[in-house]
Amino acid sequence: MDYEELLREAMRAARATAGRGRIADYIPALAGADPHAFGMAIATVDGQVHGVGDWERPFSIQSVSKLFSLVLVLAHGGDALWRRVGREPSGNPFNSLVQLENEQGIPRNPFINAGALVVTDRLLSLTGDAAGQVRELLRAESGNPDLATDRDIAASEAAHGHLNAALAHFLASHGNLENEVEQVLEHYYGQCAIAASCRDLALAGRFLAHHGLRVGGARLLSGSDAKRVNAVLLTCGTYDAAGDFAYRVGLPGKSGVGGGVLAVVPGRAALCAWGPALDAAGNSVAAVAALDAFTTATGLSVF
Amino acid sequence: MDYEELLREAMRAARATAGRGRIADYIPALAGADPHAFGMAIATVDGQVHGVGDWERPFSIQSVSKLFSLVLVLAHGGDALWRRVGREPSGNPFNSLVQLENEQGIPRNPFINAGALVVTDRLLSLTGDAAGQVRELLRAESGNPDLATDRDIAASEAAHGHLNAALAHFLASHGNLENEVEQVLEHYYGQCAIAASCRDLALAGRFLAHHGLRVGGARLLSGSDAKRVNAVLLTCGTYDAAGDFAYRVGLPGKSGVGGGVLAVVPGRAALCAWGPALDAAGNSVAAVAALDAFTTATGLSVF
Amino acid sequence: MDYEELLREAMRAARATAGRGRIADYIPALAGADPHAFGMAIATVDGQVHGVGDWERPFSIQSVSKLFSLVLVLAHGGDALWRRVGREPSGNPFNSLVQLENEQGIPRNPFINAGALVVTDRLLSLTGDAAGQVRELLRAESGNPDLATDRDIAASEAAHGHLNAALAHFLASHGNLENEVEQVLEHYYGQCAIAASCRDLALAGRFLAHHGLRVGGARLLSGSDAKRVNAVLLTCGTYDAAGDFAYRVGLPGKSGVGGGVLAVVPGRAALCAWGPALDAAGNSVAAVAALDAFTTATGLSVF
Amino acid sequence: MDYEELLREAMRAARATAGRGRIADYIPALAGADPHAFGMAIATVDGQVHGVGDWERPFSIQSVSKLFSLVLVLAHGGDALWRRVGREPSGNPFNSLVQLENEQGIPRNPFINAGALVVTDRLLSLTGDAAGQVRELLRAESGNPDLATDRDIAASEAAHGHLNAALAHFLASHGNLENEVEQVLEHYYGQCAIAASCRDLALAGRFLAHHGLRVGGARLLSGSDAKRVNAVLLTCGTYDAAGDFAYRVGLPGKSGVGGGVLAVVPGRAALCAWGPALDAAGNSVAAVAALDAFTTATGLSVF
Repeated sequence: MDYEELLREAMRAARATAGRGRIADYIPALAGADPHAFGMAIATVDGQVHGVGDWERPFSIQSVSKLFSLVLVLAHGGDALWRRVGREPSGNPFNSLVQLENEQGIPRNPFINAGALVVTDRLLSLTGDAAGQVRELLRAESGNPDLATDRDIAASEAAHGHLNAALAHFLASHGNLENEVEQVLEHYYGQCAIAASCRDLALAGRFLAHHGLRVGGARLLSGSDAKRVNAVLLTCGTYDAAGDFAYRVGLPGKSGVGGGVLAVVPGRAALCAWGPALDAAGNSVAAVAALDAFTTATGLSVF
Repeated sequence: MDYEELLREAMRAARATAGRGRIADYIPALAGADPHAFGMAIATVDGQVHGVGDWERPFSIQSVSKLFSLVLVLAHGGDALWRRVGREPSGNPFNSLVQLENEQGIPRNPFINAGALVVTDRLLSLTGDAAGQVRELLRAESGNPDLATDRDIAASEAAHGHLNAALAHFLASHGNLENEVEQVLEHYYGQCAIAASCRDLALAGRFLAHHGLRVGGARLLSGSDAKRVNAVLLTCGTYDAAGDFAYRVGLPGKSGVGGGVLAVVPGRAALCAWGPALDAAGNSVAAVAALDAFTTATGLSVF
Repeated sequence: MDYEELLREAMRAARATAGRGRIADYIPALAGADPHAFGMAIATVDGQVHGVGDWERPFSIQSVSKLFSLVLVLAHGGDALWRRVGREPSGNPFNSLVQLENEQGIPRNPFINAGALVVTDRLLSLTGDAAGQVRELLRAESGNPDLATDRDIAASEAAHGHLNAALAHFLASHGNLENEVEQVLEHYYGQCAIAASCRDLALAGRFLAHHGLRVGGARLLSGSDAKRVNAVLLTCGTYDAAGDFAYRVGLPGKSGVGGGVLAVVPGRAALCAWGPALDAAGNSVAAVAALDAFTTATGLSVF
Repeated sequence: MDYEELLREAMRAARATAGRGRIADYIPALAGADPHAFGMAIATVDGQVHGVGDWERPFSIQSVSKLFSLVLVLAHGGDALWRRVGREPSGNPFNSLVQLENEQGIPRNPFINAGALVVTDRLLSLTGDAAGQVRELLRAESGNPDLATDRDIAASEAAHGHLNAALAHFLASHGNLENEVEQVLEHYYGQCAIAASCRDLALAGRFLAHHGLRVGGARLLSGSDAKRVNAVLLTCGTYDAAGDFAYRVGLPGKSGVGGGVLAVVPGRAALCAWGPALDAAGNSVAAVAALDAFTTATGLSVF
């Protein structure tokens, strides 16, 4: 496949969505993102890396980090995690408290905020440094030693984080946090505030396409666990629009309100697209359009 | 009326409930309450005070304090409060987050925990010391200078208060708190941890039966506002069992998980009954039985 | 009291709401109501009857009928009804299915539609003619032999009644109907479609102010049951606005989407006000304003 | 691959679940199913058909029929369907009314009962005979002219169908049915009551693995639509356990309370497994275990 040309086509589809969607503004530090920015990258299991547009420009990965914290917990043999968090689509917005109350503090899946807090809490218990472990994994897989946490964004999230604090206290009230609320929130904001580029994320997610094997061939996850993570991504990775994303794009994927979407073509490649303007469900309008165009052109959906 | 005999009869009805209900154990300091304790007092608008059983023994007033903080806000001309909190029965448990999310951070009424937090927040803004103002009002009306906050209980509530912290952060995330979450919680726990006896509370609540007039004749509320507070008590004062309390007792009333229930006979008297064991809705089994017996014997319901 | 003058004052308050609210239009037959119509009547326990405006003009009583079907079931010794329907405020709109599902087919109270269907079903089992029994009670108490069911309205409701049919089938699926869905709906529409005037309804509701005694002195309900019905009216009678109605008017009351509101002053009188335009909760704007003015002027609230 | 051996292995895994789960008993006609029955079949795109156990024994396909009615609507160019039904996981049981009320009569996806009723309604409008069209499609693809509707089951469902009637009336109250409630229900029960074997269903579902091509090579769906249907199956096909099914089995699949599960290996084959005992979410315990074993052994998940 001519990936360069395919990425250019995808970018054209993304550009056609200009003017649609809204940049996340719940924290000031995100609100300043460039609405015209767009990038896309692919990292194949046979070692190719291609990109278009702003594919090497770092952006705030936000909830894309939830994928990596989950993987790190599972890599530590963390199957017991599934007693503390489900793996069903939630049918509710990512930050909803309703389901959490109805289901006694067990978040529906690891990608809604409440579930991700439980994952971060577990990773913190396992490693002592949840945010740092996520950052190190991204650095190692991307080979980018400059990949770093944006401290302004982390501080801005903490200062405007009453909803996440509510979720964390609610989890704690149900005995579903092992660490102090403040610590868990600090690491959660720390991992969300990592800045990485499409190139970085495509490389960092490639092990999910490669049966769990890291960049140098070391095993991060078993092949079976890599498949399972892809399953959870497909059913739960794009908030309350997972069904639509599966319908249009047909790939496991994880989005963040920074505008990035990381998607997996099992056995072949990881893709990352980025554009700051979000649709009503919180997914990047441009990134979804680009991925849609890419899978339509290539037939590379899992279905 | 022979109030002494009526109170003895009511106590017999309360004693007949022995063994039913459960003492609140969500904080250790409450769990140690004496399951056999029972007291009841009446304070009439013409100055009589009568009591039976442990009517002079202090207990933790808990949510009964919500009535007094509401009255103090209204006494400060706080009608604007009703833009921040409703006055409809909630149809949900007192500590539920569900309705709060559905209704964008406006608590259904001032007696569910979320609503009471908003009231405390407002009282804190108006006076600088919400918990202290509630305590001073109780001292002045009861004439009991020893009435005090139980610091152990306040500390225990704070240490086990993740659910209230979740509610407060959720309110803050919707811009419905004026003060810092930590401050509001501190004053909320402070007012709930006041220890008072049935005698103290019957005297302290008498102004609601007396058209808003305090013990010495000074006006705390307008007659119209006193009626309105009674209306909110009747529809919302006993958590998710307000309908049943109205059906059985037929008086405006406010309960707390310490086992106290303060009830108002408009134009005539305030009553307070206390027994630590609670029913499923969080109301004292013995106190409700005693009030039921009292209004059945006297015909003194509002209906 | 000079009831005539008080009613005129109340009518002035009602007239001042002209232009507010919306006439119910979910069935064509109701949509044609005269937006300028207003009437109000009082029937005292000592036999006085007074009225103003269109107080002798019949209107569709709709949900006001739910009060009479409930009373008839209780008059037949129907205390077992409370195993099939609760008596707590619902916190949800009158026609909601949500709570019904969460609570396994037990409606929250007898005045939301689902609860009223259960009451009608029970009355049908007890008497063989639920709608007819309600109509006969109204005729007897009002002394108006012309009081009748509006067949056009009943037919219109049946033709547009998918939501009530959904509620009835849902009740049936939980085993909470004794008769066929179609029969229960027919009687439900039949009782709702009764046309009566403010005069008729004030007279018909007077027994609730008179300790359960009917017009000629015969007993319909025990004094205790009359109080209990008043309690359920106050906490549940005006849909999702019961708290606000208690706060403003301070009387037990039952409203209907035909624009009528029947209210009870225990020990003294029944009042009925009518104006077709409804507020968002489905209560008559003019009728609530008139009752509010009346109780403010007289101090005749239960509080 | 040695499909015969793989199917025998899968059957062993299914047999190991003996005693777990419960046979659906909401209608008498289903309650009599043989708890020891088990069958499994595969139909590959290159024309192979294999089976084990009771793979040629007909069972009630129930909700598996929803897949075929959806496909028939899409095959008729029914993309407008997506304005009347979503394609997101529901996060609620298949027969829930809650979400339907919150979302104004637009079912979350075509596989919960409410959504399937909308699909059947549309198919009825398009063809005049929804149940018949589903049956004819199954007959044609399976080459089994004896495949038929079980009239006893259809009648039993209608007689015990208050919950589906509630859903249908609720849809009608929101204007989301084109045909009469009774007609839609009749066709819905008709399609659910079709009896087919694992062999029949594997053959009938093969076009979803074959880019939309029917048994003789004729096109039923475009390749793109076949992928999209697979996406909806994966995210919504197994009720409230879609996430878990994706995690364990990793294939698009549709289950029914008759105990059948039809799954798709895109590009390769359709599988059908059957065992009457159901787990808490309503999916066959044995069928899911068999499919899990099959994909674990072969690595044939989509991820």
